[in-house]
Amino acid sequence: MNFVLEQAVEVLGHTPPTLNSLLREIPETWLVENEGPETWSPYDIVGHLIHGEETDWIPRAKIILEHGEARAFEPFDRVAMFEKSKGKSIAELLDMFAAFRKESLHELSAMKLTPALLEKRGKHPELGVVTLKQLLATWVVHDLGHVRQIVRVMAKQYRDAVGPWRAYLSILEE
Amino acid sequence: MNFVLEQAVEVLGHTPPTLNSLLREIPETWLVENEGPETWSPYDIVGHLIHGEETDWIPRAKIILEHGEARAFEPFDRVAMFEKSKGKSIAELLDMFAAFRKESLHELSAMKLTPALLEKRGKHPELGVVTLKQLLATWVVHDLGHVRQIVRVMAKQYRDAVGPWRAYLSILEE
Repeated sequence: MNFVLEQAVEVLGHTPPTLNSLLREIPETWLVENEGPETWSPYDIVGHLIHGEETDWIPRAKIILEHGEARAFEPFDRVAMFEKSKGKSIAELLDMFAAFRKESLHELSAMKLTPALLEKRGKHPELGVVTLKQLLATWVVHDLGHVRQIVRVMAKQYRDAVGPWRAYLSILEE
Repeated sequence: MNFVLEQAVEVLGHTPPTLNSLLREIPETWLVENEGPETWSPYDIVGHLIHGEETDWIPRAKIILEHGEARAFEPFDRVAMFEKSKGKSIAELLDMFAAFRKESLHELSAMKLTPALLEKRGKHPELGVVTLKQLLATWVVHDLGHVRQIVRVMAKQYRDAVGPWRAYLSILEE
């Protein structure tokens, strides 16, 4: 599928309500269990998505538009949420994510991106030259990847409980 | 995590609103693309989940309660939805899934399952002896596995669009 800005924005707008439907009012045990040492719980992942809104996607888009390849992006702190989420309920985190995403999409819309601007190049600190279009496509895939991670973490809590069915359930082996 | 019926039911109840938030009103191209020949689109997967409500989970629970190991389950037709979904919009399918799931959970509640009943044994046509508890845990993991499949199928549509970021996005390699 070719990247079409309006189609990408639709997915980005659907992520907060999707996580809200999945996680709000679910028993807490589903939120705090993870996949073992150094892995993330659904609660952690929502915090990670919030941090991305604050420091990753729109800030990087602005750097591309303002500085092109002349200024590399700030490295993204993938684990900042362990400090930043402390003391917050999942409901607070989901509300924050929805509000930040709404603001991000507002800012994106205000950029009035044309096909030419989408091809504008920036500099990733590790990956090198990337385009604004690639950044926005990555934002979409990053969202979907973390939804997939949340449901995988939840599913693995029943790895033993499913008994012989484990042979049919590939999500338990990822 | 140990299997707790009330916690499992919570996840089962959250799946229809989650799919609704994810898929209703999304541009159609996200619904109909798949991962290549012989793979399923998000639209196909919703149909598959509907068919499971009709023929798999509650019907098998009833067979265990009524017949124990004396009667093997009917094999589940994993691809019945290709015929059954024909002509239906995604909105219709999402509504059907929500209604069928609600009815399934109503029937489950009416079974008044005790810890002893949850250990009751049935016979899977391929896997052999299974318990009712394992069937219900599998129902939960099956839901989560198909949510993960839907977001993976969507993500893969941008496999090329993300450019160099592909190296960081493990969902694109599954």
